[in-house]
Amino acid sequence: MRLSNYFLPVLKENPSEAKIKSHQLMLRSGMVRQSASGIYSWLPLGLKVLKNIENIVRDEQNKAGAIELLMPTIQSADAWKESGRYDDYGKEMLRIKDRQDRDLLYGPTNEELITQIFRDNIKSYKNLPLLLYHIQWKFRDEIRPRFGVMRCREFLMKDTYSFDVNKQDAENSYKKMFLSYLKTFDRLDLKAIPMRADAGPIGGDLSHEFIILADTGESEVFLDKNLLDINIKKIDYDQNNIKNIMNKYENFYSATDEKHNIDQFNKLVDKKNQLHTRGIEVGHIFYFGDKYSKSLKAAINTKEGKNTYPQMGSYGIGVSRLPAAIIEAKYNNQYMKWPKSITPFKVTIINLGKKGDEVDKKSDDIYHILKNNNFDPLLDDLSDSPSSKFKNHDLIGIPFQIIIGSKMKKEEYEFKELGKNKIILSKNEIINRLKEIYESDQPS
Amino acid sequence: MRLSNYFLPVLKENPSEAKIKSHQLMLRSGMVRQSASGIYSWLPLGLKVLKNIENIVRDEQNKAGAIELLMPTIQSADAWKESGRYDDYGKEMLRIKDRQDRDLLYGPTNEELITQIFRDNIKSYKNLPLLLYHIQWKFRDEIRPRFGVMRCREFLMKDTYSFDVNKQDAENSYKKMFLSYLKTFDRLDLKAIPMRADAGPIGGDLSHEFIILADTGESEVFLDKNLLDINIKKIDYDQNNIKNIMNKYENFYSATDEKHNIDQFNKLVDKKNQLHTRGIEVGHIFYFGDKYSKSLKAAINTKEGKNTYPQMGSYGIGVSRLPAAIIEAKYNNQYMKWPKSITPFKVTIINLGKKGDEVDKKSDDIYHILKNNNFDPLLDDLSDSPSSKFKNHDLIGIPFQIIIGSKMKKEEYEFKELGKNKIILSKNEIINRLKEIYESDQPS
Repeated sequence: MRLSNYFLPVLKENPSEAKIKSHQLMLRSGMVRQSASGIYSWLPLGLKVLKNIENIVRDEQNKAGAIELLMPTIQSADAWKESGRYDDYGKEMLRIKDRQDRDLLYGPTNEELITQIFRDNIKSYKNLPLLLYHIQWKFRDEIRPRFGVMRCREFLMKDTYSFDVNKQDAENSYKKMFLSYLKTFDRLDLKAIPMRADAGPIGGDLSHEFIILADTGESEVFLDKNLLDINIKKIDYDQNNIKNIMNKYENFYSATDEKHNIDQFNKLVDKKNQLHTRGIEVGHIFYFGDKYSKSLKAAINTKEGKNTYPQMGSYGIGVSRLPAAIIEAKYNNQYMKWPKSITPFKVTIINLGKKGDEVDKKSDDIYHILKNNNFDPLLDDLSDSPSSKFKNHDLIGIPFQIIIGSKMKKEEYEFKELGKNKIILSKNEIINRLKEIYESDQPS
Repeated sequence: MRLSNYFLPVLKENPSEAKIKSHQLMLRSGMVRQSASGIYSWLPLGLKVLKNIENIVRDEQNKAGAIELLMPTIQSADAWKESGRYDDYGKEMLRIKDRQDRDLLYGPTNEELITQIFRDNIKSYKNLPLLLYHIQWKFRDEIRPRFGVMRCREFLMKDTYSFDVNKQDAENSYKKMFLSYLKTFDRLDLKAIPMRADAGPIGGDLSHEFIILADTGESEVFLDKNLLDINIKKIDYDQNNIKNIMNKYENFYSATDEKHNIDQFNKLVDKKNQLHTRGIEVGHIFYFGDKYSKSLKAAINTKEGKNTYPQMGSYGIGVSRLPAAIIEAKYNNQYMKWPKSITPFKVTIINLGKKGDEVDKKSDDIYHILKNNNFDPLLDDLSDSPSSKFKNHDLIGIPFQIIIGSKMKKEEYEFKELGKNKIILSKNEIINRLKEIYESDQPS
């Protein structure tokens, strides 16, 4: 993409309304714009990051055996009245009357609707276990939306729902999602720690929050550093393997400030391994039994010919929150560097020449070569000053830069990985270097 | 995907609420379910088709030089009050009050919001021409939603908006979209005819509807058969080439019943070339000048240092309507056959064996081979009777079937393209045949 054809409105100053660094960076680098209080438009650069994250989340759901469908944003209130949550939910639910005066709402979550779909279509144990998920926009009418897309009103979520004939099977589904979440966040280059959580308003007796570590996170966390070294890359979906991984996480202390117990922390964790930092919740998994299948009468036949209510769980990832969370974890106030797996462009060419000169032609030439090699390059062909270009690209955060100025020999290129020193490479060396970088990043 | 692990609730009977064949087929083949009046959930099979269509629409927008962003579903009423449409829009607009009693609405269209984004971020002619698009859910509170996803309330649209410094440039943007629509519908294997249209409530003086031909379409159309032979596959985005193509379409008579003039039809079209059939509107393009840029005060600087309001156009494709429209055009009441470019699975394996027998093993074996060759196969491993399996697969519409029964030799397979005779192939011949079929389908 040529920057001169793109829509990337970069801001020079931090907008006064942005209080945290992810919000500042997302506005400054032209990723999002607020369209109404707590409601954002995703501009092209932000949307590319969002889509890349969404695709990793989707891919890991598919690998865990979950099946994608798509429920609508607008729901009838009927199922919520059946479950009893319509009155309970409070003002965060956006309630709507249509022209026929029927009660609708903008889905803040989907337990009712998925249970209704299940009830209307599945009658037999033979169809279980079943993991269904969707990635859809939701709305929660926060009284004080803030921190950009971190705590906004319209937001994108991935929600999975599990249906099983008994509690043991339900725990197996839970474990699959547990592992799939670890793999998802790992591919986003995040350290996500699963922490035991209260089940909250949805109810249930088994629940983990996935917290990523970031100095500027919303809540304090306390943990054993050993948790950071658990490697989940090669673990497959064998139930014993997952159980082992879960045990590893359970064996080391971790807690958010709400659950933190300082005596336990000191007793269980060596001083040198104690980590006290901050974190951001990016995922939450629950097991809640037959709460919804029962209230919505979604019974199935068992192998023995009896009726039973399936055991359910729900599993959320805050997709539109993740770009901000990743910025909080990665942005060092000098430059942003997107993880290779989700960078909006794989490489950027900073053309320091003028329209039509040799530098400009050299930039164009390498741009076409990179495009033909499917590296999705960005070419900065604007007439800004070099210092302004460098500043902008530090904001945009594409991890690899090719800098084309007039001082280099014709066959030489400055290549820079953000945060590292420039090196001099030939055209072929650049292609090979990028292939190495991006092919090593393929998930197994 | 193994059908035993999938969620594909097929119905034996036509549901009584479904009056047209696409609605019947989409319910029977488990593509969608109604969740509330005029509001649908897309089940896995339907979602795959929808996503495939969406990706072709996106790809052709990108090729035409349009840039993707994403506006939210919920909008503030403010910009609509500025443009004057808030009061005009009528009851189809879903109006909402949030907890702070502010006026919100679920976007029925996005001219106001995109103009606002443009206004807040673009000040100079240097950034034009600009084509911005998004693919997002919209809501129109139809008084009588019907015909399934064909006329529903929550629906997925692709909307592009063009911004240009003057009318001539705006016409060039319009032409680009004209060609990109022809290419999009061609890749969906549809005959789409652009017909001059009234500009309607959005206003403007240049407008085409894209109508696909289907016996069961919502409106009557009259056209010259020569229109069906215009080939747009190799046309690139050169303005003269597009002009020639547009002239070709203008040269032959076509009209919906609203605009039809029988005398003109008989005068201009030979009897043998007169086609009188029905059609479905799947796209609409408008040029409407500075209607919104002026009312929302989105002025830019010109090269000459003056202020001007950009000339705009809007270009819509009804993405979630297309699966239904394609069914209306292709379903012959005996079987559905999805176009190769959007089929939910590339090939289906109909296993007529029993769990663990030789037929079952042979099915499994070819399933793995096809999977490893990235053909995304569906394997029907259910215990239904053969006749019930054949019936279901005629509904589901995957264009290629591999039928595995006990009568064939071990190394032979029955291969069937829907609507054609079965042939006997070896494993390698199947792979090669499928490669030929699907690789010839790549867009240039």
